[in-house]
Amino acid sequence: MTNEVLALAVDLISRPSVTPLDEGCQQLMAERLEKLGFNCESMVFEDTTNLWARRGTEAPVFCFAGHTDVVPTGDLNRWHTPPFTPTVIDGYLHGRGAADMKGSLAAMVIATERFVAEHPDHKGSIAFLITSDEEGPFINGTTRVIDTLEARNEKMTWALVGEPSSTHKLGDIVKNGRRGSLTGNLTVKGIQGHVAYPHLADNPVHKAAPALAELAATTWDNGNAFFPPTSFQIANINGGTGASNVIPGELEVMFNFRYSTEVTAEVLISKVEHILDTHGLDYDINWIFNGLPFLTGDGPLLDATRDAIFETTGITTDAQTSGGTSDGRFIAPTGAQVIELGPVNATIHKVNECVSVTDLELLAQCYQRILEKLLC
Amino acid sequence: MTNEVLALAVDLISRPSVTPLDEGCQQLMAERLEKLGFNCESMVFEDTTNLWARRGTEAPVFCFAGHTDVVPTGDLNRWHTPPFTPTVIDGYLHGRGAADMKGSLAAMVIATERFVAEHPDHKGSIAFLITSDEEGPFINGTTRVIDTLEARNEKMTWALVGEPSSTHKLGDIVKNGRRGSLTGNLTVKGIQGHVAYPHLADNPVHKAAPALAELAATTWDNGNAFFPPTSFQIANINGGTGASNVIPGELEVMFNFRYSTEVTAEVLISKVEHILDTHGLDYDINWIFNGLPFLTGDGPLLDATRDAIFETTGITTDAQTSGGTSDGRFIAPTGAQVIELGPVNATIHKVNECVSVTDLELLAQCYQRILEKLLC
Repeated sequence: MTNEVLALAVDLISRPSVTPLDEGCQQLMAERLEKLGFNCESMVFEDTTNLWARRGTEAPVFCFAGHTDVVPTGDLNRWHTPPFTPTVIDGYLHGRGAADMKGSLAAMVIATERFVAEHPDHKGSIAFLITSDEEGPFINGTTRVIDTLEARNEKMTWALVGEPSSTHKLGDIVKNGRRGSLTGNLTVKGIQGHVAYPHLADNPVHKAAPALAELAATTWDNGNAFFPPTSFQIANINGGTGASNVIPGELEVMFNFRYSTEVTAEVLISKVEHILDTHGLDYDINWIFNGLPFLTGDGPLLDATRDAIFETTGITTDAQTSGGTSDGRFIAPTGAQVIELGPVNATIHKVNECVSVTDLELLAQCYQRILEKLLC
Repeated sequence: MTNEVLALAVDLISRPSVTPLDEGCQQLMAERLEKLGFNCESMVFEDTTNLWARRGTEAPVFCFAGHTDVVPTGDLNRWHTPPFTPTVIDGYLHGRGAADMKGSLAAMVIATERFVAEHPDHKGSIAFLITSDEEGPFINGTTRVIDTLEARNEKMTWALVGEPSSTHKLGDIVKNGRRGSLTGNLTVKGIQGHVAYPHLADNPVHKAAPALAELAATTWDNGNAFFPPTSFQIANINGGTGASNVIPGELEVMFNFRYSTEVTAEVLISKVEHILDTHGLDYDINWIFNGLPFLTGDGPLLDATRDAIFETTGITTDAQTSGGTSDGRFIAPTGAQVIELGPVNATIHKVNECVSVTDLELLAQCYQRILEKLLC
């Protein structure tokens, strides 16, 4: 049975679907799902290919969510094997997307095939929401499919996102929520000049330094039972012409908040601008709202996931809300419960990305058990 | 008489001698000086052309110092006239190098011609030290000519540098010294990571901000009668990958001191490194010694210059040490007295650089009077 999941993962990884390309991955999945009685819709928005597939018309709706796009390979010389020539070495399948997340897509399809074969008359519906732009600007991907579904009042009850949530062993961690993400693009204005005539200039780096120090030292909240404390990080800072004798006219700072449900984006914005104002800075700031925080508490989806993991692997999973964003942030606002469960993430976005072949089969079994617990 | 200085300035400006090019400017000057009995040596070091010309073998040695190279033109569309087609408009000669410093070079040559015609048997020697790399890296220019002269124990008594020292009117300001210049290239080390996992990273911008704030707020000295207070300026700051979700692994900061004779480079380095250490930073720092401070106090050269300016223009000049560096910093350490006197600097390094035609003639008269006061 192992070879089924591996074979499909190999087929998907061999397609070089770097964001926003899909390279036929969704067509491959749709052909298999159509044989099971799924109704498959390809939704193409601009450069992005999306698949919405559904078997059944009734509620509750269980949806597998994921993406066929992968991040760029980076330096090819540092890969032990060609990234789009999937290769098994010592029990690990190597290739770009093996862990993030073509292995999960293969496990979803195989789990569904096995489940439908045993339970052709399951209750509710099974759906797939697959995009080719999760790693990119995420403008034309999941968010637009959700808009389309909302417009026709088509709802999901539960969404299981195949993001690689596991840290050391398959299933040790699932994500039952995500922090919010808020980015600020700050321009601190000064007056450019020659370093020999500082009285004719106004150095924006000097003006900004105490404010940045205060922002970096601020405690925004202490988190809560579900979320770690809100985190502020300066990701980019740039000022100067390159010459050693010119005082820069502007300083550009890009920072990012990952925030808990103890604060809101509005509160963070107000606090940041208050600190900038207190330091007397002349500035422009552009805020980018990347996603609201969400939480899936105890309930049918989290219970089914926990139990399926324990029954399959013997592991008591830990539900966390830490880590990066995922497309779950676009699904949660519809009211759906959202959980992320996927393979070990140690190699994602790196050279020599790989996934355990054994874990691929275990993941398919977990997914199948979740379907059984929710739709039988 | 005006046309002599103007004509030579036009001839020099029409040669597009952007650093380190000379484009025959020095040859043009040498041909005229040879007719006056100067011994002319062309000293070519790497890409840089230098001229050392001397009339007489005795002390004291009065030297005109300057450069034939000019800074790039910038956007040609913003020039009212082609920068290497010298053009007189409303009494101002326009062209790249008109004020910095081909006008001064023309005035020096004409002043010398007139002086030698009247005083063929002047005492001491007249010299010219001209380079084609004052605006560039200044590695193969004045400093190497000085090395050559020092090696053969050939000394100057007085050097008059033709840098555009004047602010509003010709002669209102001369420079009788320069601050020292010290550049620091600081790399603050952190640990790169994903903004979603800040506990696995160490943000060098956050660590550096309080230290930079302290450096910017520090009073290094209060200056003295000849020098303004030492000034610290951050010229460049760069950190980050460009992405909003990556904590940078390093922060690069380039800063520059312009310092008085109240401190030394060693004291500044010690204070900076103490502040960085106090803030617990992990860093590398590379120091670049751009020039020691120097001062030409009251004495024959400053007196002659003040008197010549007053007699020619009616202006009581102000001797200052503020402003940028010049090649005077390479001449002063030999023990020579060094003064900078040149035209109004309002347009230097800008588009539509220009110099008053009247001032060119006045400048030649000033230079001639200085020669008369020192060598008659």
